[in-house]
Amino acid sequence: MFKVNYSQVKQVNVEEGGAKGVSLRWVISEREGAENFALRIFTLKPGGHTPLHTHPWEHEVFILKGFGVIVSEGKDIPITQGDVIFVPPEEEHQFKNTNDEELEFICLIPIPKKCACG
Amino acid sequence: MFKVNYSQVKQVNVEEGGAKGVSLRWVISEREGAENFALRIFTLKPGGHTPLHTHPWEHEVFILKGFGVIVSEGKDIPITQGDVIFVPPEEEHQFKNTNDEELEFICLIPIPKKCACG
Repeated sequence: MFKVNYSQVKQVNVEEGGAKGVSLRWVISEREGAENFALRIFTLKPGGHTPLHTHPWEHEVFILKGFGVIVSEGKDIPITQGDVIFVPPEEEHQFKNTNDEELEFICLIPIPKKCACG
Repeated sequence: MFKVNYSQVKQVNVEEGGAKGVSLRWVISEREGAENFALRIFTLKPGGHTPLHTHPWEHEVFILKGFGVIVSEGKDIPITQGDVIFVPPEEEHQFKNTNDEELEFICLIPIPKKCACG
């Protein structure tokens, strides 16, 4: 069993093109023994946003604190504490902090399966 | 994109042998299009606990509120808001609410892969 308070996990800046004021904690990943999905926590400064982007994997997201929007199909959908979001693979999306406090959310992604078949 | 506030998701009682004062919300599962992992939220009443049990899949857990312990290798490990826990497959575990308010946590599990190999 592995336990950590996420506040103790090192934050790294997200430098991916189009990101602004975004940092990331990798809390559970292959390093901790996970084989199926990784648990990361994003923090967006006021005015910060992730890239408007698309990728072949899904997101499962839980908003921990703050206020913002997720951009989806060209619309701004409000998000706040307790909201849970599923972004399917290949769907364009962006998270924006629209408030004057930090926006913080859990964002889970699959870990590519080492298929043992054949 | 699918969005819901978890407070709006129906709670079901957990009747599994040994559970006491436990309810569960299935927030993201195959119903919402997830193929790799499911996001559920557990609520334990004061004095409530999950079964002391073992299974072949892992848990990734985020404590949302309250105070309790996870029983692991015969020891009570304290848990509180912001703690993240990885329980590997086949490791015995139990969650207990040791406080007078509700203990609430996200608990993710893998969805068995429909392997497309030959």
